[in-house]
Amino acid sequence: MHDAPLDRFYSIIPAGGVGSRLWPLSRADAPKFLHDLTGSGQTLLKDTWDRLAPLAGEQRIMVVTGRAHRAAVEAQLPALADENIVLESEPRDSTAAIGLAAAILHRREPNVIIGSFAADHVISGEALFRSAVEQAVAAAEAGYIVTIGITPTEPAVGFGYIECGDALDVPGGEHVEAVHSFVEKPDLATARRYLADGKHLWNAGMFIARADVLLDELARTKPDLHAGLVELAAAWDDAATRGPAVDRIWPKLEKIAIDYSIAEPAAAAGRLAVVRGHFQWDDVGDFASLAKLNTAGRSGELAILGENARVLSDASSGIVVSRAKRVISLIGVKDIVVVDTPDALLVTTSEHAQRVKAVVDALRLGGSSDVL
Amino acid sequence: MHDAPLDRFYSIIPAGGVGSRLWPLSRADAPKFLHDLTGSGQTLLKDTWDRLAPLAGEQRIMVVTGRAHRAAVEAQLPALADENIVLESEPRDSTAAIGLAAAILHRREPNVIIGSFAADHVISGEALFRSAVEQAVAAAEAGYIVTIGITPTEPAVGFGYIECGDALDVPGGEHVEAVHSFVEKPDLATARRYLADGKHLWNAGMFIARADVLLDELARTKPDLHAGLVELAAAWDDAATRGPAVDRIWPKLEKIAIDYSIAEPAAAAGRLAVVRGHFQWDDVGDFASLAKLNTAGRSGELAILGENARVLSDASSGIVVSRAKRVISLIGVKDIVVVDTPDALLVTTSEHAQRVKAVVDALRLGGSSDVL
Repeated sequence: MHDAPLDRFYSIIPAGGVGSRLWPLSRADAPKFLHDLTGSGQTLLKDTWDRLAPLAGEQRIMVVTGRAHRAAVEAQLPALADENIVLESEPRDSTAAIGLAAAILHRREPNVIIGSFAADHVISGEALFRSAVEQAVAAAEAGYIVTIGITPTEPAVGFGYIECGDALDVPGGEHVEAVHSFVEKPDLATARRYLADGKHLWNAGMFIARADVLLDELARTKPDLHAGLVELAAAWDDAATRGPAVDRIWPKLEKIAIDYSIAEPAAAAGRLAVVRGHFQWDDVGDFASLAKLNTAGRSGELAILGENARVLSDASSGIVVSRAKRVISLIGVKDIVVVDTPDALLVTTSEHAQRVKAVVDALRLGGSSDVL
Repeated sequence: MHDAPLDRFYSIIPAGGVGSRLWPLSRADAPKFLHDLTGSGQTLLKDTWDRLAPLAGEQRIMVVTGRAHRAAVEAQLPALADENIVLESEPRDSTAAIGLAAAILHRREPNVIIGSFAADHVISGEALFRSAVEQAVAAAEAGYIVTIGITPTEPAVGFGYIECGDALDVPGGEHVEAVHSFVEKPDLATARRYLADGKHLWNAGMFIARADVLLDELARTKPDLHAGLVELAAAWDDAATRGPAVDRIWPKLEKIAIDYSIAEPAAAAGRLAVVRGHFQWDDVGDFASLAKLNTAGRSGELAILGENARVLSDASSGIVVSRAKRVISLIGVKDIVVVDTPDALLVTTSEHAQRVKAVVDALRLGGSSDVL
């Protein structure tokens, strides 16, 4: 477990996105990555950092986040170097976030291999994670853009899938396959077929590539976006030029997810590889997922999140998130989701957990952004 | 509707009891009678006062309540005369409360007819209520202890029942019957039979009698309790003697409901009469009842109680009581009960509403009396 950091490797943690499906726990000013969702005692962001530090080294992790989160991120990650925090003046989706980090790092270190990992996913099985990243880095060295797909353990309908193609011959990468295609969240019957056929993996949004390869791919698919990012990166490391460049370039960058700008086109062109990850992974996309995570999947149990939670439960199951120091009493409610915060309360069931985002949208439209 | 007050009649409102099944809305320091449970804009206590004032006159309504509630009661009832508020140093059940009021009033006015009506029931149909009280007063003049039973409109299992006996010949009381017996809350099959047979009425805990008749009945069944109340009443109207008498006598009085000390023995002896009330009545015993009351019995609807409640509901039904000025969002929860107060939250369903009292007991035993 004391393996040395991987050669040439640099981690990127895009820490953006509110996590609307976890409202009212996740908020604009307290997004998902700033919460402890597993009872580990620390935030998902810090968990992510701790997972990547042995692979990249603490001096080689770059965090891309919103200006509003700077203080919180720095408080969470005291070892984060000043030159490794990239602040967005406004969110412009994952291509801009990861692409800017890649472009900055490429200027600083032309042969760098970057690996981007979300700040708010839950992973267990550190050795298996390391092994997958090692394979991915080997495939990246060979010129592929690489993703790590998660071996499914159930017919999940809440995740996108990666369909694996032919095995690839990569030095040091024993189990690397081509990505045939990406598929959207399936229905249950399809998910069952995916689980059975052994050719489909969960898309965990992890991307590993040589920075130059990633930028070349972007130059092909989105030349304007690529040009903007390269120009911004050139101005980045000089305090006199960064600010004006951000103001001029950032607001005009195309908003597009990296899945669409890079991953899918690269897959279509045969330049995307996938490594099978056998570690446990969850994107904790909604409260049903959070409940499952915190009851270790045992139905009929009640998960309780929150320091000093005062919860009295009589024949109830599901999840209670307590953030308001109140006594919470549940009687005979099954698969319930109760999220109690000082200014907003959510009551729903696991079955309807995906609909939380619609409520957030309704609150925004209804002028209740004070609680978002 | 501008009928004069009834001759010799004096109303008593025992305002005690927390209403544990309505926790955390009802509390020791904010019992059920101090809440607006119907959206009328005023408390149940004030509703009760307004209902009785035309029958007795505002100067002839006596309220028996705990010392802790004096200020709240006086604030609710500005017309309540000083000599008409009886403060209990501690709760000693309904015989002591109503018996003391009867004994005090009997000393002041030997031929008074008293009528006791709970402070926290919901009634609509004022004219039908007046008509029933008029009949009851006529029967009381004739020497009966009288109760008003409610004509059932459904096979309710949450109420006790009165079984009617033979018709009684009472001057001015056209539809007065003897009470055959009292029966406890029935199961559904029994309740259906009661509804069908036309001989069973809901026991609404209303008692009307000449004060001397009521006290004589108590002297027969509970002579010690009677003696204590008469002694206390004798000391009551003198500021110098009241305090010491209360300290000496009140804590030793037997705690017993008037149903057991007076009503059942009087029924057994043929001295209890019943008048059929055709007005709508509910004791609002739990949140299921409260939900029903506030949706006018329409299932599939969501009742919202609370001034300035901010509730967003998506395909939910049941009841939300909002006392904490928070945004409350419900998604896809059916027959739900959500009671949101600053220091305690309850989530249950109509089906389990009766079990709220057990939770209150558990909180007390568990040392959480701060929220009771």
